[in-house]
Amino acid sequence: MNMPEENVVETLSQEEVWAFLGSQQLARLAFAIAGEPEIVPINYVVSDERIYFRTAEGSKLLGLTINARVALETDRVGDGVATSVIVHGTARELQTIDELEWAEALPLRTWVPTRKVHFVEITPDELTGRRFHLGDGAPDA
Amino acid sequence: MNMPEENVVETLSQEEVWAFLGSQQLARLAFAIAGEPEIVPINYVVSDERIYFRTAEGSKLLGLTINARVALETDRVGDGVATSVIVHGTARELQTIDELEWAEALPLRTWVPTRKVHFVEITPDELTGRRFHLGDGAPDA
Repeated sequence: MNMPEENVVETLSQEEVWAFLGSQQLARLAFAIAGEPEIVPINYVVSDERIYFRTAEGSKLLGLTINARVALETDRVGDGVATSVIVHGTARELQTIDELEWAEALPLRTWVPTRKVHFVEITPDELTGRRFHLGDGAPDA
Repeated sequence: MNMPEENVVETLSQEEVWAFLGSQQLARLAFAIAGEPEIVPINYVVSDERIYFRTAEGSKLLGLTINARVALETDRVGDGVATSVIVHGTARELQTIDELEWAEALPLRTWVPTRKVHFVEITPDELTGRRFHLGDGAPDA
């Protein structure tokens, strides 16, 4: 398979990116602490064009300074198509009682049923999405 | 569900971590450029306890300095179990003719059948893995 790249990769519109983000639950969050890249899986929800997830006391993520830069990726592969969305944005921990009460009502799942007591909000400033048509899925070497 | 965390999260042995890494193909790679976290999906293979993937001319990843720090995550969710492995390590681009000839023979798949002409090798220095038993999968709020 040797098609031109433009035939097999589509760029998603911003509307499609948000729709895909809203259809998924699992993403991976990248951030840096003292220059060292970190990555963690998160279960998230989207509300009002922001992304919310829970994290545990003592997690590396809570060591971030306020308004830390983060990048997030979610993807789905199946039926000959791979879709990937990447978000860049700023994270902050929810702090006020009003915020926390609101966040408790979000339909957030986590992999660990205990000790996920902190809520983090990501405000995106750049979202990109691509859809790859995989053809026969054979190695391309 | 309110089980103690130690009952629902297992820490994988290094042998289990390598076995899981070898069983997957899709990971997400985190790195930082000028302090800004970046994340990209990659299709990888493991060989001799190193991780290899292809990347395209002009990718952000190739803007990394030599011996750049990276973090990588791969996961699988199904049958009430979620497994996630996180690798920290150092990335370098393969350069010599011998290296490139060797890498061409790796069973590497990519989502884009063209323009993935560069090979990157990650030498891990820290690998961790966890297995989450999801119970009934209900939100834990």
